[in-house]
Amino acid sequence: MVNSPTIVLLGAGNVATSLALAFQRAGLELLQIYSRSLDSAAMLSESLKCPFTTDLAEIRDDADLYVCSLKDDVLADVLARIPSFGNGLWVHTSGSLPLDVFKQFTPRAGVFYPLQTFSRRHPVPLKGVPACLETARPDDMPVLEDLAGRLNCRPVPMDSDARACLHLAAVFANNFTNSLYAQAADILSEKDLDFSLLLPLIDETARKVHEASPRQAQTGPAIRQDRRIIGKHIQWLDGHCTVEDAAQLKTVYELMTETIHRQQQ
Amino acid sequence: MVNSPTIVLLGAGNVATSLALAFQRAGLELLQIYSRSLDSAAMLSESLKCPFTTDLAEIRDDADLYVCSLKDDVLADVLARIPSFGNGLWVHTSGSLPLDVFKQFTPRAGVFYPLQTFSRRHPVPLKGVPACLETARPDDMPVLEDLAGRLNCRPVPMDSDARACLHLAAVFANNFTNSLYAQAADILSEKDLDFSLLLPLIDETARKVHEASPRQAQTGPAIRQDRRIIGKHIQWLDGHCTVEDAAQLKTVYELMTETIHRQQQ
Repeated sequence: MVNSPTIVLLGAGNVATSLALAFQRAGLELLQIYSRSLDSAAMLSESLKCPFTTDLAEIRDDADLYVCSLKDDVLADVLARIPSFGNGLWVHTSGSLPLDVFKQFTPRAGVFYPLQTFSRRHPVPLKGVPACLETARPDDMPVLEDLAGRLNCRPVPMDSDARACLHLAAVFANNFTNSLYAQAADILSEKDLDFSLLLPLIDETARKVHEASPRQAQTGPAIRQDRRIIGKHIQWLDGHCTVEDAAQLKTVYELMTETIHRQQQ
Repeated sequence: MVNSPTIVLLGAGNVATSLALAFQRAGLELLQIYSRSLDSAAMLSESLKCPFTTDLAEIRDDADLYVCSLKDDVLADVLARIPSFGNGLWVHTSGSLPLDVFKQFTPRAGVFYPLQTFSRRHPVPLKGVPACLETARPDDMPVLEDLAGRLNCRPVPMDSDARACLHLAAVFANNFTNSLYAQAADILSEKDLDFSLLLPLIDETARKVHEASPRQAQTGPAIRQDRRIIGKHIQWLDGHCTVEDAAQLKTVYELMTETIHRQQQ
């Protein structure tokens, strides 16, 4: 293992907060936090007992590692206004930005993308979370592998194209799945049924794909081509259902049923 | 608690097998298993050390409880060929069949619908799983509440309309969610990425809705209305992506993105 790197963190959102807490738990030295918003930076730096700044000119240039957890559309602008990049390694934590956003600024650039959904309120353990790693210079890769190891992440070197592919898959597995949960909640509201009724099913649906591929795990009327139940469901969404946007739910029902049917062919 | 009921089980599929094992673990007496298929019944009855039959005429008429875990489209036909219903309580375990499938056969009828996805190979613990209960006669309800208690299920009395609503919501939360997992796997195959990379994210997505509503938990480019990333994703699915059915994936992407957008309004 290389020496523990000193770190400057840029950002104070969900990902930045989760990483900052994980750095601290791993005994890493956080030298400074930068955030555009005084409130966020102050709150985070206070809970971490770490200096903060809202002024890009004040960012220290003597850290080993700079971790940029800023919004994708802000990063390039922030980078353009940094006076000195020093000799440290600069990484961003985005699934969808390429490595070359750093190109014109510093040769020591990389990506440390933890594939997880982070909440500010509930610190998510990083254990086993894939850390998708990329570096402009091959000899910087061990720095990121070492960092992943210290955070108990699973280091996965991949290029920007593969990371973009993974990010898109994550949108299906996380954002769209959560939207289905919300749609299920809307349906339940028709009969004043509590969303908690679905939690054991949701948990088991997630658990199943740990041991079988999603295709093997597929069940339900769509895969059985059970026209009686599919017909009843469509009819329910079509007429009898009074929840807002029942037409949208019906469109999703029909498309997902067709997709499951095609997936088996 | 009433006396432990003696049980005859009709069926040997995923739900029947999971229930039979749960009955046994709970110390309930399984008198007999009926299945149309000799293989399934023999296999299940052997592992449970319990008599079986494939002949409806041989079904005992002295049990306290008859649990029908048969395919929806088979149940009515099977019931019509049963010579005697005895004095026991007959229940089915289906989310989508109404209680009145029993109407012409016996006055002691009910529903015991465990809201879970069952696998034959991996016994799913029933602890905390909602058991949706309905009985034709009010004085039969305590029998099913007692059974739910013995299996550590969460007893939830509801009528057939509410159960149909819950079943539809479950299709969204389970079948369609699993299909999204399969679609994510398809996308990953474009770059030979392993599906296991998504498992921590899938787990956390499911965990999050234990403490926040799905609407509160929604993240991602659709809810942020991040046109840059949405555009990149559509472009990826549109052109560059060579996985089978990329057009179908694009249609799902666009519909789910629109649905998330509408859910926030």
